Amino acid sequence: MVNVRCATCKYLRRRCPSDCIFSPYFPSNNPQRFESVHRIYGASNVAKMLEQLPSSLRPQAAETLCYEAESRIQDPVYGCAAIIFQLQQQLHNTECELAKTRAEIAIIRSNGHGQESDIYSADEY
Amino acid sequence: MVNVRCATCKYLRRRCPSDCIFSPYFPSNNPQRFESVHRIYGASNVAKMLEQLPSSLRPQAAETLCYEAESRIQDPVYGCAAIIFQLQQQLHNTECELAKTRAEIAIIRSNGHGQESDIYSADEY
Repeated sequence: MVNVRCATCKYLRRRCPSDCIFSPYFPSNNPQRFESVHRIYGASNVAKMLEQLPSSLRPQAAETLCYEAESRIQDPVYGCAAIIFQLQQQLHNTECELAKTRAEIAIIRSNGHGQESDIYSADEY
Repeated sequence: MVNVRCATCKYLRRRCPSDCIFSPYFPSNNPQRFESVHRIYGASNVAKMLEQLPSSLRPQAAETLCYEAESRIQDPVYGCAAIIFQLQQQLHNTECELAKTRAEIAIIRSNGHGQESDIYSADEY
């Protein structure tokens, strides 16, 4: 039987033990995935973070560590905080738009549905 | 003159050089800030990430690294990806609410402002 090493053990040029902490989350066919987390966190920190979790939660942890590492590689200044800022801005804009639209309905109703408010033009919708 | 070491150099029990890469972002009066990034990334990875940036962008990088590290300590499974998922959900809900409100305005208008739509009750607003 050929011993298939995971991406981590291949990268670190070591034997892949049967209970390798990396093996389920860093398969040999996707070396980039391990290289990203290794570059940002270092292999030993990733191992520590996975080991402190029950095995049922490790897939999600590995996934989000990869996501954050790739975000940091793409944007070395803001990392995935850039995505958070962008979503916060989008949410703020949408909430403002919703408040404006609700205010418009209130004005239409208070006018007895007879006269539209002058402050919003019809072509906005 | 007393030589004040930054939080990193104090933690690593070393002399703080005048050109210390950590010193501007990890002051001695906030040791927790360095301990968080050290625990998640390791001091040498943080130094590498800061060194590869022009000094004008390092404050933002240090800030977002601290933010991500603290998020990972608080939520070891999802880290700050949890905040992204939550914001995406909030944005989706607000967009749905906005679409519903705009549809209601369209219905009110198409009814010649005479009859409200039956599908939305007035007490929603």
